[in-house]
Amino acid sequence: MNKVILLNKRPVGRPTLDDFKFTSAAIPVPPAGNVLIKTLYVSVDPYLRGRMSDSRSYVSSFVLGEPMQSGIIGQVIDSKHPEFRKGDFVSGILEWKEYQVSDGKGLIKVDDRVSPLSSYLGALGMTGLTAYLGLTEIGVPKAGETIVVSGAAGAVGSMVGQIGKIMRCNTVGITGTDEKADLLKSKFKFDHAVNYRTTPDLKEAIRNTCPDGVDIYFDNVGGEISDAVLANINKYARLPVCGAISLYNATEVPVGPRLQPVLLTKSATMRGFIVSDFSAKFPAAINQLAMWLKEGKLTYVETIVEGFENTPQAFLDLFDGKNKGKMIVKV
Amino acid sequence: MNKVILLNKRPVGRPTLDDFKFTSAAIPVPPAGNVLIKTLYVSVDPYLRGRMSDSRSYVSSFVLGEPMQSGIIGQVIDSKHPEFRKGDFVSGILEWKEYQVSDGKGLIKVDDRVSPLSSYLGALGMTGLTAYLGLTEIGVPKAGETIVVSGAAGAVGSMVGQIGKIMRCNTVGITGTDEKADLLKSKFKFDHAVNYRTTPDLKEAIRNTCPDGVDIYFDNVGGEISDAVLANINKYARLPVCGAISLYNATEVPVGPRLQPVLLTKSATMRGFIVSDFSAKFPAAINQLAMWLKEGKLTYVETIVEGFENTPQAFLDLFDGKNKGKMIVKV
Repeated sequence: MNKVILLNKRPVGRPTLDDFKFTSAAIPVPPAGNVLIKTLYVSVDPYLRGRMSDSRSYVSSFVLGEPMQSGIIGQVIDSKHPEFRKGDFVSGILEWKEYQVSDGKGLIKVDDRVSPLSSYLGALGMTGLTAYLGLTEIGVPKAGETIVVSGAAGAVGSMVGQIGKIMRCNTVGITGTDEKADLLKSKFKFDHAVNYRTTPDLKEAIRNTCPDGVDIYFDNVGGEISDAVLANINKYARLPVCGAISLYNATEVPVGPRLQPVLLTKSATMRGFIVSDFSAKFPAAINQLAMWLKEGKLTYVETIVEGFENTPQAFLDLFDGKNKGKMIVKV
Repeated sequence: MNKVILLNKRPVGRPTLDDFKFTSAAIPVPPAGNVLIKTLYVSVDPYLRGRMSDSRSYVSSFVLGEPMQSGIIGQVIDSKHPEFRKGDFVSGILEWKEYQVSDGKGLIKVDDRVSPLSSYLGALGMTGLTAYLGLTEIGVPKAGETIVVSGAAGAVGSMVGQIGKIMRCNTVGITGTDEKADLLKSKFKFDHAVNYRTTPDLKEAIRNTCPDGVDIYFDNVGGEISDAVLANINKYARLPVCGAISLYNATEVPVGPRLQPVLLTKSATMRGFIVSDFSAKFPAAINQLAMWLKEGKLTYVETIVEGFENTPQAFLDLFDGKNKGKMIVKV
C-alpha cells in the first residue's frame, strides 16, 4: 500500500483538512534510469499555502487532484539509475507519497553521518539557506547593528537570530507565546524577545528593545507586526521580506499604512525574495552553515510530528504557530 | 529693501498662502570672509512640504518664524571671500530672501556660458541628479526593459523618461492632463503616456502599455497610481521611491494595499532615496548630464514664474500639477 495526499480543493482563506484528500496507489516499479524512493521525512512550510492557490504565488501552483509536494528526505530502496544506489539517502522536492519514482533530477544525496537526516530539511536545507542568504545578501549585517526578526521562533526566524549573533549584531525576536519568547533567549541567543500577543504597545516595545533603532528587519509575517517595526527603522535600513504568514490566508487584499513615506524618509530598502533567487550561493552557504553547526555556534529546533497521515494537520498547525522551529513529519 | 519669506505656520494637510509670511529687512553688509548674494532664481520643489512639518521629514525641519530655504541661483554683488568675485553666479541651498550673506559653505559657482542659469536648478542640479542617480543606481536599467514613471511630466519624471530612452528602454509616463500626456510623447520621447485622470482603469492601462510587464517603476507620487503599477511588475522589478506627492498633504496615515505580498511574490526591491544618498557620484553624474544636454539627447522644460513675491504660490501650484517640468521663480 502506498498512501498519497492530493490537493482536493483550493483553500479559501485559511486551509482546512477538507482541502486535502487521501488516496492510495500501488508501489511503483522504477523504469530504467529511475529510482524508487521511500519517504522518511516530509517538510511542511508556510509557503506551500501560496502553491495551493491558483494565483499570486511565486512558485507554480499545485494541480487540483494531483499530489501535494514539498521538501522530502527519502531512502533509495531500488535503483536503476547509475548515480544512486540502494540505501542512499536523498533530498528533493518530491510528492506527498509514501513511495515514489524519480528520474534523479533535482535529487541530492545527503549523509546521516554528517548531520541527522531531518536537518537537511531545516538547518542545512531550504530553511537554513533562506535565513543565511536573506540575512547576508539583503540585510548585509554589520557588527553592532540591530536586527529585528518576526516569526522569530519559527524555522527560519530562529536561524536568522543566531546568525545575527554570530555576526555580532543585537537581535530582537518577535513571537506569539511566552514559552517561545523564553526559547528565543535561552536557546537562540536573542538579546530580547517580545511577545506580540501580550505586549500592550508593540511599537513602543520595539523602541524600548532597540534603543539605537532597527537597522535590519527580517520579515516573516507582514501585517501589523511589521507596521510596528517599520515605525522604528533607521536611516538606510534593509528589510528582507521572507514571508507574510499573517497575510497568506487573507481573502481580501490586505490593507495597511502605505510604506512609501517611511521608505522615502529613511532611504530604506525593502526586498522580497525566495531562496532560489540566490541558488548560485547555495554550496558556499551550506558549507558555512555546516561549519557553524559542527562548531556548536548554531543550533536548531524541530517539531517532529509522527505519521505520514498527519502531514495535512501539521501544515495547518503552522498557521496557529504550534511549531517551534522547523515543522517536520516523520513517516 | 530686502524682501524675505518666512515659515509662518506648519501646514495641516495641504499648505496655503497663510503658512508663509512676508517681511522685509535691510540689505546686509557682508563681514570678512563672506559674500553678499542677490537672488536670481528660486527653486520650488515638492520635498519642501516635508521640511515645513515638524516630523516625518528626511531633511531637517524649517524653523517656525524663520526664512524658508531651497535651491537658489544668485549673483555675488559684493565679496569679502577669497574664492568668490563680484559678478560670479552661484548655486546653493539658500534662504528665501532677495539679498543674503553667505560664508561660501555649500556654494558652487555656475557658468551661464555653459548652460542657462536656471538649468543649474533643474537638469544640471538636484532634479537631474535625482533622476539620473535614482534611475541608474536603484533602477539599474538594461536595454529592452520597461520603465514606468509617475509624475512623468514633472521636473524629475521628464528627465527619467529621457534617460530611460537613452538607455534603450521602453518608457511609459503617467500624468494628469492630456496636454502633459502629449508633451511626454512629443518632447520627452516617452513610448506611451497615460492620463490617470481620464483612464477608466489605470491597472489595465499599464498592462496594455507594458505588454512585457514593468521592470522599473520610478515612483514620484505614491498612492493609488502606484498601486496600479505594482499590479503589473515583473519578477525582480526595481522600484526607486523618489517622492510621494500624493501623500505629502495627508493628515492621517495613508492606507493602501499591503506591499509585502507583491514584493515577495516578485522578488522585487523597493528603495526610498534622497539624492544626497549618492553625493559621491555627483561629479560624474553632472558630467554625463551636461554631455547629453550638449549632444541634444536630453531636453528640459521649465515653468518659470516671474516675481519673488509669487514664490509661495508657485510652490502651492506644484500640488495641483500646474507645472510642466521644473518649477522655478525668476526674481
